[in-house]
Amino acid sequence: MTIQKLDLLYQGKAKAVYATTDPEQLWISYKDQATALNGKRKEAIDGKGALNLHISQRLFQVLAEAAIPTHYVRTLDATSMLCQRAAMLPLEVVVRNFASGHFVSKFHVAPMQALEPAIHELYYKDDALDDPFINDDQVLTLKITDARTLTHMRQLSDRVNAVLRAYFENIAITLVDFKLEFGYLSDGTLVVADELSPDNMRLVDAATGDSLDKDVFRQETGDLVAIYREVAKRLDQIV
Amino acid sequence: MTIQKLDLLYQGKAKAVYATTDPEQLWISYKDQATALNGKRKEAIDGKGALNLHISQRLFQVLAEAAIPTHYVRTLDATSMLCQRAAMLPLEVVVRNFASGHFVSKFHVAPMQALEPAIHELYYKDDALDDPFINDDQVLTLKITDARTLTHMRQLSDRVNAVLRAYFENIAITLVDFKLEFGYLSDGTLVVADELSPDNMRLVDAATGDSLDKDVFRQETGDLVAIYREVAKRLDQIV
Ligand SMILES: Nc1ncnc2c1ncn2[C@@H]1O[C@H](COP(=O)(O)OP(=O)(O)OP(=O)(O)O)[C@@H](O)[C@H]1O
Ligand SMILES: Nc1ncnc2c1ncn2[C@@H]1O[C@H](COP(=O)(O)OP(=O)(O)OP(=O)(O)O)[C@@H](O)[C@H]1O
Ligand SMILES: [Mg+2]
Ligand SMILES: [Mg+2]
Repeated sequence: MTIQKLDLLYQGKAKAVYATTDPEQLWISYKDQATALNGKRKEAIDGKGALNLHISQRLFQVLAEAAIPTHYVRTLDATSMLCQRAAMLPLEVVVRNFASGHFVSKFHVAPMQALEPAIHELYYKDDALDDPFINDDQVLTLKITDARTLTHMRQLSDRVNAVLRAYFENIAITLVDFKLEFGYLSDGTLVVADELSPDNMRLVDAATGDSLDKDVFRQETGDLVAIYREVAKRLDQIV
Repeated sequence: MTIQKLDLLYQGKAKAVYATTDPEQLWISYKDQATALNGKRKEAIDGKGALNLHISQRLFQVLAEAAIPTHYVRTLDATSMLCQRAAMLPLEVVVRNFASGHFVSKFHVAPMQALEPAIHELYYKDDALDDPFINDDQVLTLKITDARTLTHMRQLSDRVNAVLRAYFENIAITLVDFKLEFGYLSDGTLVVADELSPDNMRLVDAATGDSLDKDVFRQETGDLVAIYREVAKRLDQIV
C-alpha cells in the first residue's frame, strides 16, 4: 500500500502538515514562504520549499547515520517528506556555539564570540505568551515536561550539535546556532522532529564570514534562494 | 576600638554603603526612599529606612540561628547595620512559592497559584543590560560565576526559603517570593548579603490575602509605612 496524503492538520508559516493513510505518519510539505518578526513580515519565495526539503532531508539522514533518532522517514516529492507523527513538546531548544542575533543584543557581547561550552536555551512554544525564554525550574514546576525528558533533550541536542558542526566544517561552513524541536513517538522514543534548515540555524561561510541562512532575509542583505542553493550545493558535494 | 563610618562607597536606591575603620566591614544605611519601575519612580518616605533595618536585622538573625551564613554583623543605629564586606556576585536569585507579579503576566497563570517545587530564577545584575533573566548555561559560559557557586547559591536559597517560610507562617504571613543576593567573604564563605525586607519579598496576610510588601507602593494601593510597621510588629511578637 502506498502512502496517501489525507487531511491538512496544520498550516504553519514554513510547512503544511497532513495526515496520511498511516495514522503514525505525517506528510510534511515545505512551503515557498519566508516570514520574519514572528510572522509579521511574510513573503512568497519561489524555490524555498524545495531547497529546505533538500537540506532538511540531508541533515536528518546525517543524524540518523550518527544513530540520533529523528522523525524523518523518507522523501516523498520535491517539497515533501514522510515523518513519524510525534507528540510534540512545546519547547524550542536553541544551541549556541557563537554569539549572534538576540544573544548579542541581550548580553552586549561581540558578534561571533565563541561560546564554550555551547549554550542551551529553552523557549516555551505558546503563541499567546509570545514564546518566552524559560528556565528548567519553570518548565518542571509548570509541568511542561519532566526532568528525565529535559535531560534527554539536552543530551540529544549536544549530540546533534557535535554531528552537525563537524559535518558543516567539512564544507567550510560554521554552525553558529540552531533551534530544535522534539517529540515522543508512540513507542516512547524521543526524536528530533520539525526541520533542519537554514530557516532554523545560523550558518556562516568559514572563509568569508558571510551569512548562509535566513538572516539574509531577516536583514534584507541578500537573495535567500541563491544562499540556500549554495548551502544545498555544498552539502551535495559530500559523499 | 569602636567602628567608625568612613567614605561613602555606593549610593543605592534603597541603601547607602560606607567603608569603615575595619576594611572587612561595611556600614550599610537603609534609606527613607522607595523606588519603582527600575528607579524611574522615586519617593521619599519617612520611617521606611528604620522599618527595613528593623525587619532585615530580624530576618538575618533568623537565618543565622538556622546556621545559614549571612553578611550581617550587628545593628549600629536606627537605620544602619554593620556587615561583612563581600565580593558580590552580579546575580539576583528569585525564589517563588506562589505565582505573582511578572511571573503571572509571563505565563498567564492564576495569581497565587502554588509553585511546587519552588521556582528559582536568576537575573544578571547589569544596569546597561537591564538586569536580564539568565539561565545556568549562560551564567557558566559567560563566566559570570562557576558551577560550584551556582549549586551552592541554589542550596542556600532553598534553605533560606524553608526557614523564612516557616518563620512567617508563625505570624500568619505567606512568603510568596523573594530576591536574594550573594557574595563571597574574604575567607571564601558564600553568604546571603544585601537586605531581607518587604522591598525584596512579596508577603501576604494569610487570613485576608492583603499585600504586606512593596507592592502597595508599586501599585499605589496602600500606605507603605503602615504596612511595613505591621510586618515589623508581627515579627516582634515572636520571642
Ligand atoms: N513529527 C511531527 N509530529 C507532529 N508535529 C510535528 C512534527 N514535526 C513538526 N511538527 C509540528 O508541525 C508544525 C510545522 O509547521 P511550521 O514549522 O510551519 O509551524 P510554525 O509556523 O513555525 O509554527 P509553530 O512551530 O509555532 O507551530 C509545527 O507546529 C511543528 O511543531
Ligand atoms: N555585604 C556586602 N558587601 C558588598 N556589597 C554589598 C553587600 N551587601 C549588599 N551590597 C551591595 O550594596 C548595594 C546596596 O544598595 P542598594 O540595594 O540600594 O542598591 P540598588 O539601588 O538596589 O542597586 P543595585 O542593587 O543594582 O546595585 C547593592 O549594590 C548591593 O549589591
Ligand atoms: Mg516552525
Ligand atoms: Mg538593591
